[in-house]
Amino acid sequence: MRLSRYFLPILRETPKEAEIVSHRLMLRAGMIRQEAAGIYAWLPLGLRVLNKINAIIREEQTRAGAVECLMPTIQSADLWRESGRYDAYGKEMLRITDRHEREMLYGPTNEEMITEIFRAYVRSYKDLPLNLFHIQWKFRDEVRPRFGVMRSREFLMKDAYSFDLTAEAGRHSYNKMFVAYLRTFARMGLTAIPMAAESGPIGGSLSHEFIILASTGESEVYCHKDFLSFAPPPAGIDFDDAAALEAVVAQWTSRYAATSEMHDEAGFAAVPEEARLAARGIEVGHIFYFGTKYSEPMKAVVNGPDGKEVVVQMGSYGIGPSRLVAAIIEAGHDDNGVIWPEAVAPFHVGVADLKVGDAATGKVCADLVQQFENAGLDVLHDDRDERPGAKFATLDLIGVPWQLLVGPKGLAEGRVEVKHRRSGERELLAPHDAATRIISAVKQALA
Amino acid sequence: MRLSRYFLPILRETPKEAEIVSHRLMLRAGMIRQEAAGIYAWLPLGLRVLNKINAIIREEQTRAGAVECLMPTIQSADLWRESGRYDAYGKEMLRITDRHEREMLYGPTNEEMITEIFRAYVRSYKDLPLNLFHIQWKFRDEVRPRFGVMRSREFLMKDAYSFDLTAEAGRHSYNKMFVAYLRTFARMGLTAIPMAAESGPIGGSLSHEFIILASTGESEVYCHKDFLSFAPPPAGIDFDDAAALEAVVAQWTSRYAATSEMHDEAGFAAVPEEARLAARGIEVGHIFYFGTKYSEPMKAVVNGPDGKEVVVQMGSYGIGPSRLVAAIIEAGHDDNGVIWPEAVAPFHVGVADLKVGDAATGKVCADLVQQFENAGLDVLHDDRDERPGAKFATLDLIGVPWQLLVGPKGLAEGRVEVKHRRSGERELLAPHDAATRIISAVKQALA
Repeated sequence: MRLSRYFLPILRETPKEAEIVSHRLMLRAGMIRQEAAGIYAWLPLGLRVLNKINAIIREEQTRAGAVECLMPTIQSADLWRESGRYDAYGKEMLRITDRHEREMLYGPTNEEMITEIFRAYVRSYKDLPLNLFHIQWKFRDEVRPRFGVMRSREFLMKDAYSFDLTAEAGRHSYNKMFVAYLRTFARMGLTAIPMAAESGPIGGSLSHEFIILASTGESEVYCHKDFLSFAPPPAGIDFDDAAALEAVVAQWTSRYAATSEMHDEAGFAAVPEEARLAARGIEVGHIFYFGTKYSEPMKAVVNGPDGKEVVVQMGSYGIGPSRLVAAIIEAGHDDNGVIWPEAVAPFHVGVADLKVGDAATGKVCADLVQQFENAGLDVLHDDRDERPGAKFATLDLIGVPWQLLVGPKGLAEGRVEVKHRRSGERELLAPHDAATRIISAVKQALA
Repeated sequence: MRLSRYFLPILRETPKEAEIVSHRLMLRAGMIRQEAAGIYAWLPLGLRVLNKINAIIREEQTRAGAVECLMPTIQSADLWRESGRYDAYGKEMLRITDRHEREMLYGPTNEEMITEIFRAYVRSYKDLPLNLFHIQWKFRDEVRPRFGVMRSREFLMKDAYSFDLTAEAGRHSYNKMFVAYLRTFARMGLTAIPMAAESGPIGGSLSHEFIILASTGESEVYCHKDFLSFAPPPAGIDFDDAAALEAVVAQWTSRYAATSEMHDEAGFAAVPEEARLAARGIEVGHIFYFGTKYSEPMKAVVNGPDGKEVVVQMGSYGIGPSRLVAAIIEAGHDDNGVIWPEAVAPFHVGVADLKVGDAATGKVCADLVQQFENAGLDVLHDDRDERPGAKFATLDLIGVPWQLLVGPKGLAEGRVEVKHRRSGERELLAPHDAATRIISAVKQALA
């Protein structure tokens, strides 16, 4: 992508309204723009990150056996009356009346709708287990939206819904998502700690929040330090192997971990003092097992092996991709801007032409861009007629992991400068060697 | 994808409520489910097609220089008061009041919001031309939604918005989209004919609708038959070459073509009788050049080369991906089901194991699936314990372009059956030859 033809509206000044670093940096880096309270437009740079997060989520959901669909944003109130949640949901639900005076709403979640879809089609236990997910915009009319996309009213959510014949099978489905979530967050460079959680308006008896530690986190959390060194489950894990999944879940629930709501002083005191971690955390995922809470009132039943009707067991599993963009920034930034992990970086590499108009730098930049594109990397080519300082600042602010600075002085000696955003290390290399080095580093990071 | 683990709820009976073939087939093939009047859930098969259509649109928009962003679905009424459209838009606009009694709406289109984004950031003519697009759900509260996703209330739209310094540059931006649209529809196997159109509530002086011919089309259209044999612009066309684009547009506007609204009996009578085509058509795209209609009241200005403020020239460009799914089916189906072009087919190839449980057919199917996946094809592996007849019917109904039927009798002679959905041709080949043949045919179709 040539920056002169891109839309990257960098702000020089730090916006006053932004209270936390991710919100400030997302505004400054031209990733988002507020269109109304808690409602944001995703500018091109922000959208690139959001899409990369979605792609990782989608891959891991699919690997765990979930099948993607896409439900609409607008739902009928009648559906929510069936489950009893229409009146219970309160003012966070955005209620709408259409031109025919029908009561509608902007979906804050989809348990009712997916149960309606399930009961319309599935008749036999032979079609179970089933897990359907979608990635769709939701709306929750928060009283006080804040922190940018961290707590917005219109937000993107991946929500999956599992259907099983028995509680035991339902537990296996829950574990699949538990394991998929560990992998999903690890691939984004995050250490997410599963914590026993209250199930709130979704309901049910078993629930975990996935929390990443960050000083700006919304809630206090307490956990054992061992979580920081647990290895995430491998890509090759067999999701059909219930025992293998149970072992992963057992490990990741073997140490104390709780949000303030569920905190138990005595339990935490039992953790050796040097292993106690009290910190602030950001919720990036939440999974629920709620059995027949929706399937019972909404009559989602299948014929069991003996021909008798069985009410199906359900769970639901949420991740907030829009909020994750902010959470990843909270976990990775410095005074100069964002530090993206390669897996979600909007561009893997930036090529800055330090003397636009110079035939030599122009040629080398074009060749490098071509090499990176051929290797499947996302490249930002800064071909703007700007001072070198502005180019360095832009690449740092938007967090491009690998930066190649191509100037006439270096080229006179056959060298370009490679800069690694995270470590700050710089090195002078021949253009071809620089490209090879970067391609190999990015491919390794994405593997 | 193993069908036993997929969610493909085929309907045996033709739903009564569906008046047109695309709606019937989308319901029967388990592509969509109605959740409320004019509001549909996209089941996994439907979503696959929708995503492929989006990918083609995105590629061609990007090739033409447009940059992707993503605006929210909910907008503030104030924005629409600035342009004067809030009161003018009427009952098709879904109006919403939030918990703080603020007037909001579900965006039916985004001219106002994109103008607000533009004016917030862009100051100089040097940042032009600019074209921003997004693919986002829209809502238009139609009195009588019908024909499934062809005329729904919640629908997906790709809308692009161009900003230019001069009317001439604005015309070039318009031509870029005109050419991109010809390529976009051609890649989906459609012949879309640009027709001079009324600009309606979007406004402006220059507008073309892109219409495909289909007997179930919503409007009568009149055109010269030459359109059916015009070649679409090549992939390598230079979008910066204003003259080259103007030549394409000149060719595609050189013959009579009009919807009934713009129909001119005398003009049509001047077409040689054997070249006159009066038919029904489906609108799949609509582009507008409206100059300063929004930029003037909303004060979207840049500093020109002479330092003076210039009100920017704008256009907007819409394609309906959700409606396109239906339009492609209207253009391609037979009594047995859908006939997808490879470019948008949910799966390129179906591998039907005709004797599930048989070691030999199982092994051959697994090997074939692996070969196709390695080649990057999307494969549906029918591993259900079902009669062969049900498997053939399913593959035909959902329109899989290439079908491989693997049964014990054929295998005894070292053969599998290859069936081509569109032509109906069948051939017995060795498994490896069948795979090679299909991979090469699909790659050629996608090239």
